[in-house]
Amino acid sequence: MRLRVVIPVVGDVFDAPIGDEVRSWAGPGTQVEVVSLTRGPASIECEYDEALAAPGILDRVEEAVADGVHAVYVVCFGDPAVAAARELADLPVAGGFEPAILTALGLGHRFGIVTVLPNVVPMLRGAIARLGLTERAGPIRNVDLPVLGMEDRTVLLERLYGEASRMVADDEADVIVLGCGGMVGVAEELQTRLARGGAYVPVVDPTAAAVTWLERCVRLGLRPSRTTYLPPPPKQRTR
Amino acid sequence: MRLRVVIPVVGDVFDAPIGDEVRSWAGPGTQVEVVSLTRGPASIECEYDEALAAPGILDRVEEAVADGVHAVYVVCFGDPAVAAARELADLPVAGGFEPAILTALGLGHRFGIVTVLPNVVPMLRGAIARLGLTERAGPIRNVDLPVLGMEDRTVLLERLYGEASRMVADDEADVIVLGCGGMVGVAEELQTRLARGGAYVPVVDPTAAAVTWLERCVRLGLRPSRTTYLPPPPKQRTR
Amino acid sequence: MRLRVVIPVVGDVFDAPIGDEVRSWAGPGTQVEVVSLTRGPASIECEYDEALAAPGILDRVEEAVADGVHAVYVVCFGDPAVAAARELADLPVAGGFEPAILTALGLGHRFGIVTVLPNVVPMLRGAIARLGLTERAGPIRNVDLPVLGMEDRTVLLERLYGEASRMVADDEADVIVLGCGGMVGVAEELQTRLARGGAYVPVVDPTAAAVTWLERCVRLGLRPSRTTYLPPPPKQRTR
Amino acid sequence: MRLRVVIPVVGDVFDAPIGDEVRSWAGPGTQVEVVSLTRGPASIECEYDEALAAPGILDRVEEAVADGVHAVYVVCFGDPAVAAARELADLPVAGGFEPAILTALGLGHRFGIVTVLPNVVPMLRGAIARLGLTERAGPIRNVDLPVLGMEDRTVLLERLYGEASRMVADDEADVIVLGCGGMVGVAEELQTRLARGGAYVPVVDPTAAAVTWLERCVRLGLRPSRTTYLPPPPKQRTR
Amino acid sequence: MRLRVVIPVVGDVFDAPIGDEVRSWAGPGTQVEVVSLTRGPASIECEYDEALAAPGILDRVEEAVADGVHAVYVVCFGDPAVAAARELADLPVAGGFEPAILTALGLGHRFGIVTVLPNVVPMLRGAIARLGLTERAGPIRNVDLPVLGMEDRTVLLERLYGEASRMVADDEADVIVLGCGGMVGVAEELQTRLARGGAYVPVVDPTAAAVTWLERCVRLGLRPSRTTYLPPPPKQRTR
Amino acid sequence: MRLRVVIPVVGDVFDAPIGDEVRSWAGPGTQVEVVSLTRGPASIECEYDEALAAPGILDRVEEAVADGVHAVYVVCFGDPAVAAARELADLPVAGGFEPAILTALGLGHRFGIVTVLPNVVPMLRGAIARLGLTERAGPIRNVDLPVLGMEDRTVLLERLYGEASRMVADDEADVIVLGCGGMVGVAEELQTRLARGGAYVPVVDPTAAAVTWLERCVRLGLRPSRTTYLPPPPKQRTR
Repeated sequence: MRLRVVIPVVGDVFDAPIGDEVRSWAGPGTQVEVVSLTRGPASIECEYDEALAAPGILDRVEEAVADGVHAVYVVCFGDPAVAAARELADLPVAGGFEPAILTALGLGHRFGIVTVLPNVVPMLRGAIARLGLTERAGPIRNVDLPVLGMEDRTVLLERLYGEASRMVADDEADVIVLGCGGMVGVAEELQTRLARGGAYVPVVDPTAAAVTWLERCVRLGLRPSRTTYLPPPPKQRTR
Repeated sequence: MRLRVVIPVVGDVFDAPIGDEVRSWAGPGTQVEVVSLTRGPASIECEYDEALAAPGILDRVEEAVADGVHAVYVVCFGDPAVAAARELADLPVAGGFEPAILTALGLGHRFGIVTVLPNVVPMLRGAIARLGLTERAGPIRNVDLPVLGMEDRTVLLERLYGEASRMVADDEADVIVLGCGGMVGVAEELQTRLARGGAYVPVVDPTAAAVTWLERCVRLGLRPSRTTYLPPPPKQRTR
Repeated sequence: MRLRVVIPVVGDVFDAPIGDEVRSWAGPGTQVEVVSLTRGPASIECEYDEALAAPGILDRVEEAVADGVHAVYVVCFGDPAVAAARELADLPVAGGFEPAILTALGLGHRFGIVTVLPNVVPMLRGAIARLGLTERAGPIRNVDLPVLGMEDRTVLLERLYGEASRMVADDEADVIVLGCGGMVGVAEELQTRLARGGAYVPVVDPTAAAVTWLERCVRLGLRPSRTTYLPPPPKQRTR
Repeated sequence: MRLRVVIPVVGDVFDAPIGDEVRSWAGPGTQVEVVSLTRGPASIECEYDEALAAPGILDRVEEAVADGVHAVYVVCFGDPAVAAARELADLPVAGGFEPAILTALGLGHRFGIVTVLPNVVPMLRGAIARLGLTERAGPIRNVDLPVLGMEDRTVLLERLYGEASRMVADDEADVIVLGCGGMVGVAEELQTRLARGGAYVPVVDPTAAAVTWLERCVRLGLRPSRTTYLPPPPKQRTR
Repeated sequence: MRLRVVIPVVGDVFDAPIGDEVRSWAGPGTQVEVVSLTRGPASIECEYDEALAAPGILDRVEEAVADGVHAVYVVCFGDPAVAAARELADLPVAGGFEPAILTALGLGHRFGIVTVLPNVVPMLRGAIARLGLTERAGPIRNVDLPVLGMEDRTVLLERLYGEASRMVADDEADVIVLGCGGMVGVAEELQTRLARGGAYVPVVDPTAAAVTWLERCVRLGLRPSRTTYLPPPPKQRTR
Repeated sequence: MRLRVVIPVVGDVFDAPIGDEVRSWAGPGTQVEVVSLTRGPASIECEYDEALAAPGILDRVEEAVADGVHAVYVVCFGDPAVAAARELADLPVAGGFEPAILTALGLGHRFGIVTVLPNVVPMLRGAIARLGLTERAGPIRNVDLPVLGMEDRTVLLERLYGEASRMVADDEADVIVLGCGGMVGVAEELQTRLARGGAYVPVVDPTAAAVTWLERCVRLGLRPSRTTYLPPPPKQRTR
């Protein structure tokens, strides 16, 4: 299958590392194609960034449809423009949020999220409510590092561990979800550290969750329902 | 006070009628200024339209802030880009949805919505869930007319009455909310017809609700909380 | 418009200060008329007080209807006898609770309440549940001062700030609601102090919210739904 | 034990029949004492009636406390003044609603209520929400007969059966609750008729539920929590 | 009436003490008959134990039905096999959980549970959610003592008081429920200690609650609904 | 990976067809091993059957753990003994319900279930509530065919289509979930028929969902959280 990976920001700084990460999770038959935007923000950390990124993402989704790919992954934990993309495309489309949360739901009772900045927390709270999953949600915390400031893996891991271990110790989360598509390559180490502190608590990496989620949809022959995501009516649309 | 009205579509076909409608509801001290978009869709009827309209709306909100207006009304029942706009601006910003729903909540137990097309229904269901108001929501129905096809007021009223009276007869709604900013000038007539069929059931016009909601915020000296709508971090953003 | 203000306690100690407060929020065309009770409690701080006050409040509402006023404000955060009054009257009636909470809902995600005494907390929790708004509710705290013991504004403000700032610091509330109609003239100062501590968090004054809410209903031509508030059947009723 | 039965209406028309009904359910050691009101409505069928009845009920509760009874039953499905009475008294107090609903919760998944008039339906919906039990609630229907118009048992049973059997057939209720303290002596017959139509569906009589609920509380040595029902602060209260 | 008490574990160590406890709560006309299992675990402290105990419990329930008893009490707070037993039997069947929780719901707003081991906590959280009662639930804590290790009443009471008093002090519970059928004879003392610390908070003993609950069902002529608990279809079943 | 398939009934009638079905969905590297029970019911269609099947299922899970398999699938939509099995095993275990529902949640807003018999409906309603997913659940209907009576695929498909198409037409479900592990080989055809009637609505086959779910867990290195599923304490357990 062909998986189109849309990095929803301008610039190509993420193209190589995210592409590598996606390929490391993809199955043997999956061909990974990475694109990013020519208009939009340099990173997505608030509603404003999401809104600015949306048209560029949808350009890429329309290209992907025209190119005949089998699935589209929008690499952002806020699922920007994903609902709109599902209206456009007769194929599985996902961001990082929904696959990660649904994965967590199958592993333990409450999921806790650790994201990048405080700005993202209210967005995620709204996204959880929109999915009707408030009853299963534990805390949403942050490492107070911007998307473009997580290069130092030691600092990142230290802060992730601080927030995650506190949720577990306080009996507020049974599964930890990493709340940013840029937190690559740290889930396993975090999981190991948490287990050292007591019980095994799974850590869900959103990229891993999304890639395998999409592959599974394709394998199952399933795509988003057309009674939830209706095709957009034709009309004039000026870009 | 200066109220900036953002019509979130390209073209000026709505400028005069919506402007007149807003002025008819505005208080004596309110100066109404109408703008529309140079990029975006011709109407908003799905997630895709909302996503395409968002950057253009935010351009207008940034202008409004720079111009020193006191409040901004984005004339669409889906509240497109409203959360993002609240991140940008230290003043009250509203679309048609939230003020209308909150108004309905104060008038009766369950609110029913009649909107334009089936495409909008899942969006509104998501918006209600996001606000945590599912317990108060009755049905969401539609008149199956596009935003740009409601000129025939007789047909519109007939269909609104059909859907609304059915909800009331089935004991599923205590308040009716008109689910499109383009359904102007029909609320009162619909309310009269419904009352003829039995009990008085209020009908909430989203434009009326939004304009007076914003005026009231200004009068009360209140604007959106900065712990729900944090200011966007500075970064490169390419339009 | 004529606004009848019902102070739901015996004695006239609140007549002048509440009347002044209401007038300070009322619009230019609003004529404010203040009445209090001849039977009932000296203040409302528990279910028992509410029950005792109810018939006297309803006497005043019936007078108001006979006098042809346009709206009625029952000055108590517990909304005593408000549902019953809506059954009696074909005009907008509100207490302090519902308009304040609905106002808060439009400003941020979770509202926190600071009320007078611990006795009031369970009542308010019940009122929130009755409105189906539990998902949006943050903490309900109190200043441990009786309604008739809030004259010292310095103490009142100090305690309000203590409770409100703790909610905000603990990320439990995005909007603060003052939980007593007697907490007049402190909202703005509290808001200023909170903003000094970090982010802007709106503070909703229930009197301000109620007065402008009622004015807005009148302006919009809306009153409570008769399918939620049905007219009382005729029968013998001994006072 | 001494059980004080408060019939919350003026007149003594219900004293004998309700007294007999209560005695028929009471255990061997229970002494039943019936009182009614000197001020209040002739029946309770809306929020207005509840409000008017409340002070008279509380008079009777205070007498009951002074008389040293062990429990108080307020014979009305709306639980009028019950929360206030629990603040006053260190003993079990119940109306017809809460014991009936909690009994129903232990017998099947969803409870359906058949009450007297449409006016009562919104009150009961609010009462269910206040108790946080919306998830378990089925329909609330009515026989469209006033409290003072249910003498014809044939008509009453016919209408109860019509509403209850429809709920069961539509798979909307697993237990039926009779929604008026005046619907005495019909539960068993209704249950028999429903069982004839297919599966056994329990029918809960609110008087039977309340009397045995109170006896059980006394036997268990339990009364309402003082952190939910705090004692009223002392103050002037004019009757 | 004949009450069959099923102790859902192998061995007879609980037969005498639980039998005595049940008899101490049973009414004068109740004949108590105690049985335990020949296959199953020595105590129930996790989902695994519940699953292993279930067939043995159902053997005992089938015997009870054949013997013509009037009610069955399965002495375990997890209500093991109770739903299955209700499918089998046309008579009231209860474990310790549901009667205790429904009793608590009538006494105060939020119930807090103190159970035996951490292993039980997720099971109880699930049981509460299954009953749709999450909105009323406070904390679920444990004394960290196994079912077979609570002989030292001083230690047990000390730990129960530690957990319960903390919930009350933190304003998280209005009623305390003892979360194990083996915590016999401590409820009253715990209640007394809690009241010393401030307000009266009821403590619900699950055995007392269950026994009187079942007696009350028999007296009211009510048993579980057959639309929630349908009779098992006939088929081969190998034990 | 080695996938142990536990058919939770006595007899080997399902071994070949379910084994084939599982193999048809399994990935290239998955080795499928099928076992069934020596004690338990011939099919699972009620709580009673689930309870009787549980110990036999857990025997098979313990064997699977001892045999070093990588995942266990219990082939029943009621997820019998799955929670207990997760306490026993440090590897992914799933029944048919949870993977199917979580798959449906990612495809559309409300899921509707079509199961075998009316007896199963209350169990599934309870299972949904336990997972905190009531807000997303549409109707639960049945084809009124027993597990051992679905050989006639024409009849089965006709009834599935009848129930599913009604849910979609009534706007009550956006995704259809087949509610029995024995409904093999009909999902695709049902999906095709539904799409003919209008919009594409995905149909989730529980076996397909479960097999690929477990493979994905193994690939992601994730297993159930040990804070939700704690290891059973050691003790005497008599089989």
